[in-house]
Amino acid sequence: MMCDLGCFKWIFARMGFALLGGLLFLGGGMAMAASPAVSDDSETCLGCHVGATPGIVSGWKKGRMARMTPETAMKNPPVSRRISIDKPPEKLAAVVVGCAECHTMNAEKHKDSFEHNGYSVHVVVTPGDCAVCHPTEVDQYGLNIMSHAYSNLQGNPLFRSLGDATNGLQTFENMKITQAKPDPQMEGDACLFCHGTKVEVKGMTVRDTPDGEMDFPLLSGWPNRGVGRINPDGTRGSCAACHTRHGFSIEMARKPYTCSECHKGPDVPAYKVYNVSKHGNIFSALGGAWQFDSVPWTLGKDFTAPTCAVCHISMVVTDDGEILSERTHSMSNRLPLRLFGLIYAHPSPKSPDTTVIRNSQGLPLPTELTGEPATKYLIDEKEQAKRLQTMEKVCLACHAQGWVDGHFARLNKTVQYTNDMSLTATNMILAAWKKGYAKGLAQQDNPFDEAIEKMWVQQWLFYANTTRLASAMVGADYGVFADGRWFLSKNNEDMLDWLKSRGVRN
Amino acid sequence: MMCDLGCFKWIFARMGFALLGGLLFLGGGMAMAASPAVSDDSETCLGCHVGATPGIVSGWKKGRMARMTPETAMKNPPVSRRISIDKPPEKLAAVVVGCAECHTMNAEKHKDSFEHNGYSVHVVVTPGDCAVCHPTEVDQYGLNIMSHAYSNLQGNPLFRSLGDATNGLQTFENMKITQAKPDPQMEGDACLFCHGTKVEVKGMTVRDTPDGEMDFPLLSGWPNRGVGRINPDGTRGSCAACHTRHGFSIEMARKPYTCSECHKGPDVPAYKVYNVSKHGNIFSALGGAWQFDSVPWTLGKDFTAPTCAVCHISMVVTDDGEILSERTHSMSNRLPLRLFGLIYAHPSPKSPDTTVIRNSQGLPLPTELTGEPATKYLIDEKEQAKRLQTMEKVCLACHAQGWVDGHFARLNKTVQYTNDMSLTATNMILAAWKKGYAKGLAQQDNPFDEAIEKMWVQQWLFYANTTRLASAMVGADYGVFADGRWFLSKNNEDMLDWLKSRGVRN
Amino acid sequence: MMCDLGCFKWIFARMGFALLGGLLFLGGGMAMAASPAVSDDSETCLGCHVGATPGIVSGWKKGRMARMTPETAMKNPPVSRRISIDKPPEKLAAVVVGCAECHTMNAEKHKDSFEHNGYSVHVVVTPGDCAVCHPTEVDQYGLNIMSHAYSNLQGNPLFRSLGDATNGLQTFENMKITQAKPDPQMEGDACLFCHGTKVEVKGMTVRDTPDGEMDFPLLSGWPNRGVGRINPDGTRGSCAACHTRHGFSIEMARKPYTCSECHKGPDVPAYKVYNVSKHGNIFSALGGAWQFDSVPWTLGKDFTAPTCAVCHISMVVTDDGEILSERTHSMSNRLPLRLFGLIYAHPSPKSPDTTVIRNSQGLPLPTELTGEPATKYLIDEKEQAKRLQTMEKVCLACHAQGWVDGHFARLNKTVQYTNDMSLTATNMILAAWKKGYAKGLAQQDNPFDEAIEKMWVQQWLFYANTTRLASAMVGADYGVFADGRWFLSKNNEDMLDWLKSRGVRN
Repeated sequence: MMCDLGCFKWIFARMGFALLGGLLFLGGGMAMAASPAVSDDSETCLGCHVGATPGIVSGWKKGRMARMTPETAMKNPPVSRRISIDKPPEKLAAVVVGCAECHTMNAEKHKDSFEHNGYSVHVVVTPGDCAVCHPTEVDQYGLNIMSHAYSNLQGNPLFRSLGDATNGLQTFENMKITQAKPDPQMEGDACLFCHGTKVEVKGMTVRDTPDGEMDFPLLSGWPNRGVGRINPDGTRGSCAACHTRHGFSIEMARKPYTCSECHKGPDVPAYKVYNVSKHGNIFSALGGAWQFDSVPWTLGKDFTAPTCAVCHISMVVTDDGEILSERTHSMSNRLPLRLFGLIYAHPSPKSPDTTVIRNSQGLPLPTELTGEPATKYLIDEKEQAKRLQTMEKVCLACHAQGWVDGHFARLNKTVQYTNDMSLTATNMILAAWKKGYAKGLAQQDNPFDEAIEKMWVQQWLFYANTTRLASAMVGADYGVFADGRWFLSKNNEDMLDWLKSRGVRN
Repeated sequence: MMCDLGCFKWIFARMGFALLGGLLFLGGGMAMAASPAVSDDSETCLGCHVGATPGIVSGWKKGRMARMTPETAMKNPPVSRRISIDKPPEKLAAVVVGCAECHTMNAEKHKDSFEHNGYSVHVVVTPGDCAVCHPTEVDQYGLNIMSHAYSNLQGNPLFRSLGDATNGLQTFENMKITQAKPDPQMEGDACLFCHGTKVEVKGMTVRDTPDGEMDFPLLSGWPNRGVGRINPDGTRGSCAACHTRHGFSIEMARKPYTCSECHKGPDVPAYKVYNVSKHGNIFSALGGAWQFDSVPWTLGKDFTAPTCAVCHISMVVTDDGEILSERTHSMSNRLPLRLFGLIYAHPSPKSPDTTVIRNSQGLPLPTELTGEPATKYLIDEKEQAKRLQTMEKVCLACHAQGWVDGHFARLNKTVQYTNDMSLTATNMILAAWKKGYAKGLAQQDNPFDEAIEKMWVQQWLFYANTTRLASAMVGADYGVFADGRWFLSKNNEDMLDWLKSRGVRN
Repeated sequence: MMCDLGCFKWIFARMGFALLGGLLFLGGGMAMAASPAVSDDSETCLGCHVGATPGIVSGWKKGRMARMTPETAMKNPPVSRRISIDKPPEKLAAVVVGCAECHTMNAEKHKDSFEHNGYSVHVVVTPGDCAVCHPTEVDQYGLNIMSHAYSNLQGNPLFRSLGDATNGLQTFENMKITQAKPDPQMEGDACLFCHGTKVEVKGMTVRDTPDGEMDFPLLSGWPNRGVGRINPDGTRGSCAACHTRHGFSIEMARKPYTCSECHKGPDVPAYKVYNVSKHGNIFSALGGAWQFDSVPWTLGKDFTAPTCAVCHISMVVTDDGEILSERTHSMSNRLPLRLFGLIYAHPSPKSPDTTVIRNSQGLPLPTELTGEPATKYLIDEKEQAKRLQTMEKVCLACHAQGWVDGHFARLNKTVQYTNDMSLTATNMILAAWKKGYAKGLAQQDNPFDEAIEKMWVQQWLFYANTTRLASAMVGADYGVFADGRWFLSKNNEDMLDWLKSRGVRN
């Protein structure tokens, strides 16, 4: 073949595409619709919305949904498929996934459906809608503790006390602080931003648009894309939390920046730990050249170090096609322990609904106040071992068994150590309550709202969690002086100091 | 066209350029000087400086200034122009913008001009110099509160007290701390690094150079590129703060890293908030493939999510050429409120010179100590609405009106909440002053230098500001446990605890 | 030349390689083995390990070691060489550096050697092994204080007290906290993760493998890749700390992410400071297009702003081939001062072994408790001037002498200021010890374990260090409100407040 003008244009088109999209190779075996077939309904939507919301339209056009029909997607070999149905619904099979396909789907189930230019449209696209083509992922996600992030928080009186003590408005008078309940609307700006709000239709409103006055539903708890959002169709969660609308790029979902949106604060600084780990360093230094869009995702070829998704979610295969780990949207599948201590780290809960848990005192906590696990509600050792083994299979691709054993032995020590350091703080808060220096559980008062109580909270919520994450994800630097061991020991001394001063004061 | 050796070389040259510069398409309509015409004066400079300061020369060569004459730039259609003159000065029209063009410009106005190999050269290039080709941008910048960052800080006795309490040297003797005034030279390492120094000529000095001994001016407040720098020609600011010398790349100015240089600390953690927002996540995950060098900047094509510049500065157009927002270097144009609370968030000030502001007590503050705005000096509701609308036009490209309304309704709640939480802290500090537990405004003493006063400062300067920014820029995770709501409520409890202990102590 | 199918394939192979590896130009003068010659021994390893540890094998294959024989490397001109031998050992000369070359090297020196399928293999590859081809780098590194990071920490009773007070388990009883010695295994998760562990063989263990049961050594202190690791062959350090196994990419070692693994915490936040500096901003904004793999590394061509490596380690040349700085693995070569204050910043120590240092009181500190340097153990002014000059040569490539002078004058002021602020805190802790409010050096008790002592530690370890780094690396924003000057002055006030309350209490 000689390279004439056509070849030359083709080279540059491909080059341009590569640079724009960050990908060169679209994957040999992947089938792609030659000329995308947009449904008539979606064409109607686009007619106005290309002008009304140009950013949404161009975002969608850049994504796979705009180029791929379910029918074509089915032609990929199973290991390369991103959909999990055997047969697409007839109406959807031969068209790409456009506006109408998602926003008019399951109209009858959606309390937020409203009449819009002859269509029954809903604003809030839900896992129920996505399940039409991705049922396996949605089913798995239902078993993920994240899908219960709203209800586990709001349905647990103790956790709600923590929310109240964090977000409630305080006023000062006569040397006293009074704290009101948090404003419900503002909670969508706080805990519920990540946990998810309850989205409800509160009536209709008329808005001026370029096409005249139109009716729209008034939604409470909106906007929100929290992982445990309660949707107007009764489903839980928002796929868009990670698969950002309207491109739904797997590249984005696989990059740690997505996880960092909710896993960066001092309560759960997973991203910050990853960032100072060797794994994170390799990603930062070399990840610009990795292929984040390949399915299946090949270790050593597409990427050379783990991201969050590699260890916790993605299907990972070797060059030989061996599957090291199966894709899961129930991330707890690979987690023997729950490192996020409320109040202590403990074996993972059996059910994603943690509101059912009660310890021997009747408190809605997975452990006693003194740390012993509420075993009835937690997975047993066999299940823990199974989950550890699932996780280790990925580790072992790059590390010898001795390395991996050493790592997890250390993590176990650190879990025990941090739990013990939290117990020390808990023993001090129990003393404070007993002596009446503060009012907490013993007094049936909010246990998280006074100065000494907030020190106690930081012990387990910030410092113990940080130290454990730093150990688990080998970002040790973050677990020593940055919110880690230094503060675990300092905070205990500060609490002791407070107790002693209060002893003098009283 | 057949691709022979020449074609092949050309392909690779272009490819190399693309990879080096991060750009493939130089923009169809953009005119570019075929062979750059460097002025004789600049050639003289380069003669020595290519050896003396090779990094500066190569940095300049990579930039547009080194390749583009004003005359050629004028040939671009207005919407693609980066200069804002109608006719370039004759001397500059046909040469690229080189060393001599900037460093000998306006020599007579520059108190820092000095004789250097036959030229009257100045080291400090200023907005006055840039205005020769970019007068609109410089004029706008003069209305930007940032251009007054030095004088607003240094000319406000209260803000200076905060600076003194932050940077002054403390000594301990007889159970007392004495705090000296900060060393003026060292202030360029502290607040004035970002705010800008006052650059003044303090004499001349002789230096050994490869070409023998030479005279150079001794500058105080140098080096500095703060946004409100007082220059030796009497102008304010430094374009190089964002348009990094000597490449002056618009790509850099548009990337959020540039803003982060001064907007990352706990007082104004805009970058950190952006980083955990969905917008920031999209930038981090996909921004590597965006075009940051295009003028005009097309939403959906050049970029698919906002950066700082998109919302606050840049001209943004749609694929159809509709201008969503006009370029402004007076960033406050799009800001109805000043979220950065000193002590409270409030409507934006009318004038960039905030030293004129007095509240009803005569304090140089935009609100009363108890939060009510000093309305006389602040923009009215109509202007606020206008600015909000300007900002919303960008939001609405990717979000429905219901989404945008919900967002700003929440922000308003959060502004009120954070102001109220700051008021609670202020009521406690007022009590402390009244009872004589600390010496502050009531005692005509520095209100920011004692332990309890510093807790109060953190309430509004760190925690309230952080919470508001997290709300405004939808990086909620940063506004809960990381310097946000948790600390707003904890800090109030800590202050109360202090007050009570002092009650016992006294 | 016409571009036929072969040319076309070649273009894309090269393009693909470029995008994958982040490099386009492999460097004109660089010789590369046409078809890599893997030794028979390494082929044997690969036979099993391509399946057993596929990630390691693919990581290695992507690296230069897998493609380059020492013999071929020798053909590069000296300035482009990455090896520092005159003549490679005969056995290694004509083969690439594979599994067997490193893991069976110096078998007789390695206490961790074990019989593995007929080979004497060691898991822990050490600087002693790397020195076979890179002796100059390993020799330099031996003079680097980092190579003594384990022993300087563990061999200094005061530093060990700090470690104990940080990592030891605290228990609370009878209004007292008792702190145990840290668990040795868990220390590998804390300080020793970065400082390095002591890796020792503790016996053998049998493991099930796909090839049946096999014997492996049980290592204590493993896994670890700390910079001062004590290896089973008696050497110090781990080249893999920066030159990540098994790719050993110079690109990674040169990127600041690598340094950030250990230089990000509040004790030494160099990376965070860099990130808000103009230098870091340029790297973040434009560095994606830089060449990080070139040797020599050309300023202005390969990169346009400093990274950590540019200032502290790498050989940097100009376009004309002038060497601005020589490569060094003894990073202290360019450091006149040790900014990392224990307790005060001071001239760099003469020897990398700091356990020999004693101040006039006999304490193992480089200064008196009141700040005066223990000059006998520290470099003199002449050596300081020489090191400053080495550093400045890089600065001067992009900055005029006046700029550089101004910068270092400010840094010196800031060093003095921060030392003085630490002295103020030290005077308070001395008062606390004297009055018996806390038990420290005066009582021969751990001086770092009580509440007031920990406040003192934060003064120098966090706030003074941060402020100095922010000044040195011109990331001023990080040195004011983020762990910098604000906290230096606040912490002193808090300490005073504590002292006063204790005065009342006692």
